Amino acid sequence: MVTQNTEEIPRSVWYGWGDPSRARPLTEGALEYLRTTLGLHSVDLSHPPVDFAEVHVGEGHLDGEVLEELRELLGDAHVSTDQTERLLHSGGKSTPDLLRIRAGDARQAPDAVLFPGSETDVRRILELCVRRRLAVVTFGGGTSVVGGVEPLHGQLEGVLTLDMRRMDKLLKFDGLSCTATFEAGIRGPAIEAALEPLGFTLGHFPQSHQEATLGGYLATRSAGQASTGYGRSDDVVKSAHVETPAGPLDVGSLAPGTAAGPKLLDVILGSEGTLGVITSATVVIQPLPQHKSHGAWSFPSFAAGAEALRKLRQEGVRGDMPHVCRLSDTDQTAATFKLGGTKTAVLAAYLGLRSQQSPALALFLWEGEARETAARRRRSARILRAAGGIPLGPMPARAWERGRFSGPYLRDELLTRGVLVETLETAATWSQLQSTYTAVRGAILDALAANGGSGYVQTHISHVYPDGASLYFTFLGGLERDGLAQNARVKKAASAAIVAAGATITHHHGVGIEHAPYMSSEIGRLGLEVLRRIKESLDPTGIMNPGKLIPAATAEAPAVGEASSASPQKEKP
Amino acid sequence: MVTQNTEEIPRSVWYGWGDPSRARPLTEGALEYLRTTLGLHSVDLSHPPVDFAEVHVGEGHLDGEVLEELRELLGDAHVSTDQTERLLHSGGKSTPDLLRIRAGDARQAPDAVLFPGSETDVRRILELCVRRRLAVVTFGGGTSVVGGVEPLHGQLEGVLTLDMRRMDKLLKFDGLSCTATFEAGIRGPAIEAALEPLGFTLGHFPQSHQEATLGGYLATRSAGQASTGYGRSDDVVKSAHVETPAGPLDVGSLAPGTAAGPKLLDVILGSEGTLGVITSATVVIQPLPQHKSHGAWSFPSFAAGAEALRKLRQEGVRGDMPHVCRLSDTDQTAATFKLGGTKTAVLAAYLGLRSQQSPALALFLWEGEARETAARRRRSARILRAAGGIPLGPMPARAWERGRFSGPYLRDELLTRGVLVETLETAATWSQLQSTYTAVRGAILDALAANGGSGYVQTHISHVYPDGASLYFTFLGGLERDGLAQNARVKKAASAAIVAAGATITHHHGVGIEHAPYMSSEIGRLGLEVLRRIKESLDPTGIMNPGKLIPAATAEAPAVGEASSASPQKEKP
Repeated sequence: MVTQNTEEIPRSVWYGWGDPSRARPLTEGALEYLRTTLGLHSVDLSHPPVDFAEVHVGEGHLDGEVLEELRELLGDAHVSTDQTERLLHSGGKSTPDLLRIRAGDARQAPDAVLFPGSETDVRRILELCVRRRLAVVTFGGGTSVVGGVEPLHGQLEGVLTLDMRRMDKLLKFDGLSCTATFEAGIRGPAIEAALEPLGFTLGHFPQSHQEATLGGYLATRSAGQASTGYGRSDDVVKSAHVETPAGPLDVGSLAPGTAAGPKLLDVILGSEGTLGVITSATVVIQPLPQHKSHGAWSFPSFAAGAEALRKLRQEGVRGDMPHVCRLSDTDQTAATFKLGGTKTAVLAAYLGLRSQQSPALALFLWEGEARETAARRRRSARILRAAGGIPLGPMPARAWERGRFSGPYLRDELLTRGVLVETLETAATWSQLQSTYTAVRGAILDALAANGGSGYVQTHISHVYPDGASLYFTFLGGLERDGLAQNARVKKAASAAIVAAGATITHHHGVGIEHAPYMSSEIGRLGLEVLRRIKESLDPTGIMNPGKLIPAATAEAPAVGEASSASPQKEKP
Repeated sequence: MVTQNTEEIPRSVWYGWGDPSRARPLTEGALEYLRTTLGLHSVDLSHPPVDFAEVHVGEGHLDGEVLEELRELLGDAHVSTDQTERLLHSGGKSTPDLLRIRAGDARQAPDAVLFPGSETDVRRILELCVRRRLAVVTFGGGTSVVGGVEPLHGQLEGVLTLDMRRMDKLLKFDGLSCTATFEAGIRGPAIEAALEPLGFTLGHFPQSHQEATLGGYLATRSAGQASTGYGRSDDVVKSAHVETPAGPLDVGSLAPGTAAGPKLLDVILGSEGTLGVITSATVVIQPLPQHKSHGAWSFPSFAAGAEALRKLRQEGVRGDMPHVCRLSDTDQTAATFKLGGTKTAVLAAYLGLRSQQSPALALFLWEGEARETAARRRRSARILRAAGGIPLGPMPARAWERGRFSGPYLRDELLTRGVLVETLETAATWSQLQSTYTAVRGAILDALAANGGSGYVQTHISHVYPDGASLYFTFLGGLERDGLAQNARVKKAASAAIVAAGATITHHHGVGIEHAPYMSSEIGRLGLEVLRRIKESLDPTGIMNPGKLIPAATAEAPAVGEASSASPQKEKP
């Protein structure tokens, strides 16, 4: 039996990711590669974060009466106005978040951090916040990379962050029906640790897995590295309990299928704390796999590799798809081979001999019973070979699996070395995938070069669907004087290219602050009006996570009351 | 290559189903079985529908000016106030619908029937109806069995039915991405006829398939007989265009996966025409199967059979599930064997010898490439045998497949013979399946017997999920003097039992009028308030399909404007 129980790690350090002592520093070869690729004179450690003592947090605005009331509600131990606690909840883990806090700016820290222990606690907090006009930001692992947990006041008197860490229990297990109900504050490794002795797994492994929570997965519609096999978070959830300012709400059905009207669960999924607080959820779990089988294949180009994945998904025998299915473009593959040491150098040389001079590397992980996994793998091999693939053995996928959660550590070191690094993602149908890839990649490179610097972008597919695939872009550039502006410039160019390509503004990072301006392209003006009405019904005073997901109604957009009488206009022509 | 292109049939006869000349009359054996089982003295043809000329349709209420405007909008040919046309749109195909119309009562016929030909037509009709305060009922195949297309006025000046039959084209085909975009009025067989030459199938085969439309599938979240393999209608749809009184709305994403906020597509799915008119939709299609393999297995009891299906779904190799997967309880199996002629009598005798005196019959249909289908079938056989199953060869599943769309014809003859027949359905998790089955079956039998008559109920599972299965009940009883009251009594008892069991009020029939009273149990009071707010945003004057899906706000329920300020109350404890 394979164990999925990944390592528990401490909550993230204030200036970056996880426990820095677990980070593996960049090798000299990697530094040389950076210098060459980015044309930087230096990639030394010249941009460290400020000293912790120098971070400016500022004072909270809560009056004593409110604090007293909160302490009575939750107990003194679960209401914190401590500077460090507030600093640790002053944002998520986007590159802009890190650039700000590394520079010592935590001025937007919440006025207090609350640690509710139950549905009732949450309900009482919301009642108080409605009454006192305080904004509420729900905080799971705090790993948002799109500004989803920024403690914004909006038009209100103050802002409280609800850290859900105490609500981390397995509430119910139904082995016969393969479902489990968890409190929403449980983190990824704890989910697996609870299920493993029962013989089950959730199989949800986003890169943020070690920090992120179930509630965060659902509130952002996250997808994990094995979601091609196990499904996205929005595929595996059956129901959720939500505390809203308008009262408690149960969405979803415990029935396996229903035709009882619109599915309100799908209104809560992706709502990013703007409608209420998800306090618990029931998910479908799967038997722990008995076996994992690793594979790597090389393709003559990214397009050829993508075509192979499409065929594997569409023409492969039902259920043969690997659980993990990733394809790097030729840039990312070159970096992997360059930085992987002797073994990968041998692979690269071998591929050169087989006339794949700039190959695209695909990594696979099949899970299941040993014999049938082997059979699926053999059947897949026929398709991959016919599509021009060359098998490379299990090593590259094993290496990927070992480092699968360590990417964010790398960013911390890169920033310290004066290298801007950011990621963004989209998804497109198979017929639009290559044009989307080309357009977005080009937009990123152009924007990186806009101030005369040079940049680098690498891309991979990490989720494969019958009708298309995701695209994940990682870009690097020498950090300019105003890193925030530099990052925003590139992000904006990439987002514009995504919208123009008709792809989605986010495949799994969520909307937050960063993608909110693109929601009208994504769902149309009337779609936004529907979202606003839903919010009004559950959060009439607008205390829930202001500024996220739903862009402020602008002068051009009709006021809510007028939307209905406006003459119909074509949306998304 | 297997063909899925099922037969086009004429639109249904006014008093019942399809083309009566295609009905196969009940055999003498079946009549004898009915007499014995139901304890009826006579099952002769003593309850025919009234003569067509005697049906009371009544006058329409539209003033000439409105009619003139409509004719200008759509052309004379596409606006009908003809008595026959209005009669044909006076309801759906529920047993109460049939009881009423067979007795000559079509008084609730719409004031006119419109046949829009485009999005623009629909948009203009809605504009006019808002202005003139006219209710709009969207009519696809008109096969609702829950009152979903009853032309109710509500509080408005009149009611128009929009028959979508002219909007039946394939708009776009993307073979690479396996998607197709259809106008919503296309019927089941036409969908398959359009896809077959392209090498694809939608694979959606509800019993109503030959009459029903794509728009109807989506508006009711329908599931088909092969949905265990192909997915429900809400699984396969990617996006939809909706015309609403507040304007056009595009929901869903053409991207294969997205994290861009709540999924408004899932607000439109199941909305049953109460929010707008679905005019087109994009669906994921699948390659036509090369081969079909039929199987039948017998189990010592319904519980043992259900346990076998659970194991097949949960323990079977990924993707091994048959596309069609049905299990009859012992009553339904007995009827099948009794009425199936010599061949099934031999099977029954064989099972008696193998000491399955009252067996439960399971039918399977595997689809795919011939060799891998055979392999899936062999692997499944191991699980089914270990669960106590006895294989019966392909014949019973072939017989089922031949008659798969003919059930509704039977109902017409039964009503003529003075036998009440109705169906209802739910779904439950595996751990609640048997208790739900027992409770609902018992409630139906008790209610059938309440007036001293005897009754009969048979049940089957038709959809198998990882976490549970559907339950489909068919009940029969001697028709009482007030058949409508009799039917309502049994339906009410069954619905109460479903709610008490914590199962869903409908697995695939939808809500309509009949299940609307149970929506507050299903989604809670606050959930209903959210639905009402969504409706307000898209249909502020309430013209869309009044009386369906969303129950009228009662005195106890808060008015919409008050919902938000009400103090939180526990929903669905």
